[in-house]
Amino acid sequence: MDIFLFAIFLAACVGAGATGAVFPPGEWYKTLNKPSWTPPDWVFPVTWTTIYLLISFAGARVGGLEGSAYALAFWAMQGAFATLWSPVFFGLRRLKGALLIMVPLWISVFGATVCMFQLDFWAGLAFVPYLTWITVAAALNASVARLNPNVVPVDLSKV
Amino acid sequence: MDIFLFAIFLAACVGAGATGAVFPPGEWYKTLNKPSWTPPDWVFPVTWTTIYLLISFAGARVGGLEGSAYALAFWAMQGAFATLWSPVFFGLRRLKGALLIMVPLWISVFGATVCMFQLDFWAGLAFVPYLTWITVAAALNASVARLNPNVVPVDLSKV
Repeated sequence: MDIFLFAIFLAACVGAGATGAVFPPGEWYKTLNKPSWTPPDWVFPVTWTTIYLLISFAGARVGGLEGSAYALAFWAMQGAFATLWSPVFFGLRRLKGALLIMVPLWISVFGATVCMFQLDFWAGLAFVPYLTWITVAAALNASVARLNPNVVPVDLSKV
Repeated sequence: MDIFLFAIFLAACVGAGATGAVFPPGEWYKTLNKPSWTPPDWVFPVTWTTIYLLISFAGARVGGLEGSAYALAFWAMQGAFATLWSPVFFGLRRLKGALLIMVPLWISVFGATVCMFQLDFWAGLAFVPYLTWITVAAALNASVARLNPNVVPVDLSKV
């Protein structure tokens, strides 16, 4: 595995993960109605850190292989939408808007997983936790949006 | 050029561009002190749309080439940090925080441009407007941060 390539993918993940840090759940999130199967708070950063290490490994592993373009394009796509999700959910408190972002995010992670498996078994396997997690996260987003129909989005023009 | 590959890269750009739409400049931005060379407002969406089309073309063009991994990894990295910038600047109003994001963003665009040129002249050329613009945008961010030292960041925990 090319360690410099791994470092560039990991840097991209740091960018995506930074939205979670600058738009943290905070007190507002605690007040929301959540389904009984909501994971405890500490699970989220641990899971994301693991996922980011695994998908950086996957990107670096297939990077040198012929025909990796689709896998890496889907990799890039998930990075943009993963970065977009936190500011919309935790920043603007737009629960349905965030759920809308889950659609291209899920598609990109699914696309990356399928393409990675066609190139390399271990790279594909490294994307499986991400695909599992983003499915759980989308279901959680949908439940939270349904259970909290009266959340008022943040209107930045009035701040 | 592979049109499906172009579409995936463009979808990633839609994700990145969406932050500009959900975190628009608004009235607050108008009140900021800006340097005399600040481009008029209409320039920003036009420039970004052009850049996103050009870099999607570049990604799709080099995707099939051997040794494109670094170019595509830098492509993914710019996508995450470009998405991160708007919510921090326009959402949280953290002018210095946004300037900090400009560092990895500029590095990733520079890295992508250099790597693209090594693979294909037209792909490299397609990244030049982005490198130029991100340099201007970083300088503008720095000037605005310097000219508006008393901007109060948005504290989401108090909204």
